[in-house]
Amino acid sequence: MSENAKHPVEIVDLVPLTEQSPYMKPLRLHYKQNGKQLTWDCIKTHDSVAILIFNSSRNVLVFVRQFRPPVMLSALFNSMDSNMTNIKEKFEENAASMNPNLGFTLELCAGIIDKEGLTPTEIAREEVIEETGYSPPLEALHLITTCRTGVGSSGSLQYIYYCEVNDSMRVSQGGGIDDESIDVVEFSIEESRKQIYQCDKSAGIGRTPGFRLAISWFIYEKLPSLQLNK
Amino acid sequence: MSENAKHPVEIVDLVPLTEQSPYMKPLRLHYKQNGKQLTWDCIKTHDSVAILIFNSSRNVLVFVRQFRPPVMLSALFNSMDSNMTNIKEKFEENAASMNPNLGFTLELCAGIIDKEGLTPTEIAREEVIEETGYSPPLEALHLITTCRTGVGSSGSLQYIYYCEVNDSMRVSQGGGIDDESIDVVEFSIEESRKQIYQCDKSAGIGRTPGFRLAISWFIYEKLPSLQLNK
Repeated sequence: MSENAKHPVEIVDLVPLTEQSPYMKPLRLHYKQNGKQLTWDCIKTHDSVAILIFNSSRNVLVFVRQFRPPVMLSALFNSMDSNMTNIKEKFEENAASMNPNLGFTLELCAGIIDKEGLTPTEIAREEVIEETGYSPPLEALHLITTCRTGVGSSGSLQYIYYCEVNDSMRVSQGGGIDDESIDVVEFSIEESRKQIYQCDKSAGIGRTPGFRLAISWFIYEKLPSLQLNK
Repeated sequence: MSENAKHPVEIVDLVPLTEQSPYMKPLRLHYKQNGKQLTWDCIKTHDSVAILIFNSSRNVLVFVRQFRPPVMLSALFNSMDSNMTNIKEKFEENAASMNPNLGFTLELCAGIIDKEGLTPTEIAREEVIEETGYSPPLEALHLITTCRTGVGSSGSLQYIYYCEVNDSMRVSQGGGIDDESIDVVEFSIEESRKQIYQCDKSAGIGRTPGFRLAISWFIYEKLPSLQLNK
């Protein structure tokens, strides 16, 4: 997507994670099942919120596009090798041919649950404000469902919300805080519907199952009862 | 769910992951965006396949239930603390009250792509045989879509398939290979539909967004044109 050039990415280095990370902690669980001793390697990560936003002034769904380093690395490793050995060496051999554009995603507005004293719904509202620039009242956020994600690695809980906004709620251009470089993307209902089953393989843009599920919920569960602004 | 007692789980120990793991490699990427140097912590994991299975002899969808250590740990940590410090100490303090039942999931039949020389579709077929005991021909597997999962941590690619089977294809009871303890679960179409937006928070069973998306695809995209066996 040529839009990615708005936030150009340059790869510097890839190293094993040896220091403490504030975002993930690699763990090994020893357990027994049916009396047999087993191990499972996993990561502790934060739970998260994700919000499907509908702008009722213009009948558009509001998403975000951003660079996700894990997606770029996954796409890169796929094209190199399917096993887990000598990652750093392979990375260095292939660094020149790396294409950061493989790491961009289309997602729901989302964020991790890492703020003490705020409920998931309050954190969801903050993410809407920070990432998209709309400032809805807390009552505008409705829980669609909660899911377990990454069940083989993190198992973290994701709260998926629906939030209706309108043009009068726009207080900034959004784009995220601190070092985030987030583009706000608006799709018509028909354009959104086309995203649900688009293949990500070699497509140059990543879309999660949760993003697709939320659009599907909107199309099949919400839209039939929605009074659209003409 | 009382069904979990079929494969009783006992927790032994939780330790930081310091050795090499064949399933995940913690990495740190250094990169620049908009000219500013940034880091992102992530894991390299395998890509995966997941298969929505419909048994046309009895009009049921076929899923799997299994113990997922990361889901249990995530549920446990949620109830203790939202930040990432002193995980081992907190685990030990709370070990006596841990409930392995928090770690069971309902999922699509699925597996990682780690077999050299096999295509994703061939691996998907093997997973159907190993986990559910149905042996469909390769032509029975149809790609629904490919997604990026864990975009903040692994970014791995998941191929989601649809596969129609019938009772004459059942060659074993399934249950997985090696140390896997997988229960095959059959749901009617109506029971499956109820899974799509069931909340996982405090529900004692985890369901991924991909599991929900695949059922939604079946209900809205496949079922209208399916000739059901009366």
